Amino acid sequence: MNEQHIVSAFDRELETIQAQVIKMGGLVEAAILDASKSLKTLDEELAEQVRNADKAIDGLEEQINADCAQLIALRAPTAVDLRVVLSVMKMAGNLERIGDYAKNMAKRTSVLVHMTPVEGARGALRRMAREVQLMLKDVLDAYIQRDAELARDVLERDHEIDQMYNALFREFLTFMMEDPRHISPCMHLHFIAKNTERMGDHVTAIAEQVIYVATGKMPDEPRPKVSHYEPE
Amino acid sequence: MNEQHIVSAFDRELETIQAQVIKMGGLVEAAILDASKSLKTLDEELAEQVRNADKAIDGLEEQINADCAQLIALRAPTAVDLRVVLSVMKMAGNLERIGDYAKNMAKRTSVLVHMTPVEGARGALRRMAREVQLMLKDVLDAYIQRDAELARDVLERDHEIDQMYNALFREFLTFMMEDPRHISPCMHLHFIAKNTERMGDHVTAIAEQVIYVATGKMPDEPRPKVSHYEPE
Repeated sequence: MNEQHIVSAFDRELETIQAQVIKMGGLVEAAILDASKSLKTLDEELAEQVRNADKAIDGLEEQINADCAQLIALRAPTAVDLRVVLSVMKMAGNLERIGDYAKNMAKRTSVLVHMTPVEGARGALRRMAREVQLMLKDVLDAYIQRDAELARDVLERDHEIDQMYNALFREFLTFMMEDPRHISPCMHLHFIAKNTERMGDHVTAIAEQVIYVATGKMPDEPRPKVSHYEPE
Repeated sequence: MNEQHIVSAFDRELETIQAQVIKMGGLVEAAILDASKSLKTLDEELAEQVRNADKAIDGLEEQINADCAQLIALRAPTAVDLRVVLSVMKMAGNLERIGDYAKNMAKRTSVLVHMTPVEGARGALRRMAREVQLMLKDVLDAYIQRDAELARDVLERDHEIDQMYNALFREFLTFMMEDPRHISPCMHLHFIAKNTERMGDHVTAIAEQVIYVATGKMPDEPRPKVSHYEPE
């Protein structure tokens, strides 16, 4: 009877922490959307908002880490439950990194506002960011529903993000060769593209944790990976 | 008496894990040195070795995570001991990321071998990587000796890495404007510089954990940070 009580206290506390993770995920989704919108429209004020909003995301990660540590210390969960708690901490870490990349996009937007505009590239970057945000939305849904199939679908879609990045890489090269005034802005745009591609990598890392929590196993197959270094 | 026994079992097991962290740190130091050497001398074979050696680093991180999880599950450490274990996991995570950046440097070296050489920049990149490797060496020493002063010294030195990066950023811009054949190799060199600067960020994150383990407090002052986004 007493043990039953302890187990459900653990579950209840874990659920509270998981709600924080979902909240954090929502803030990160908003950061991606706002950052890519500010880039597309060169909206310095919105970029500034994204930079400031990152503090709340960092704060949530710290809270989740502290709560998880307390949960482990207080409830001394068994091996399986412990791994779920450690997965939650990893996911919060991945979300924090994605938030950082969104903040970084906003920082570079504030710089790009004062440079020669490079037409076309910002629209493609926004589409890429939008795709990553949708993947993040789906992986959070998969986590709530313990849906390993949906998480696997997200893993597959990272392939497209990698292809979008490779196409942008070539586009930036041609822009830079066309006009030396494009070199400086394109270096920033290239970093944004690379960071967006990395956001996708963190979303897939979350998907792997979701599969692990849902099935008890990490996905067997290493996910398909396009080389980023030889995009010819 | 029995409790005494449990406490020292925890300490002994923690020490074994910490030895793994130090070993991992040594491999990461070697990876940084070899990757920057292969870049400087355009030695494709050495670059290939660095890429392969990363598997051992990843394996050590997995081992450390598994051992830490087992230690927590088995010994149910108190709040303070638990935080030390969580710090160890964070440090292993930082080391793994630094190893990834070194691998990435080696990957880009394999591409740069087949491009128009850009004179001068590779030497500066090697100096920067060498500086990061020395910071890593010192932070590992600080960890072994629980030396918060040495860890704080490492925090300070990250400032220099940031300045080196900013100088290189400007240098790459001028190279690219001088000759369009430099654009493609300089984009790779620029990423290497950025990744080396990020290695420095992870070394400082380790330094913060060392200060935390040694003093029980995270460092008060946010470390000085040069903007990477507006280097003129």
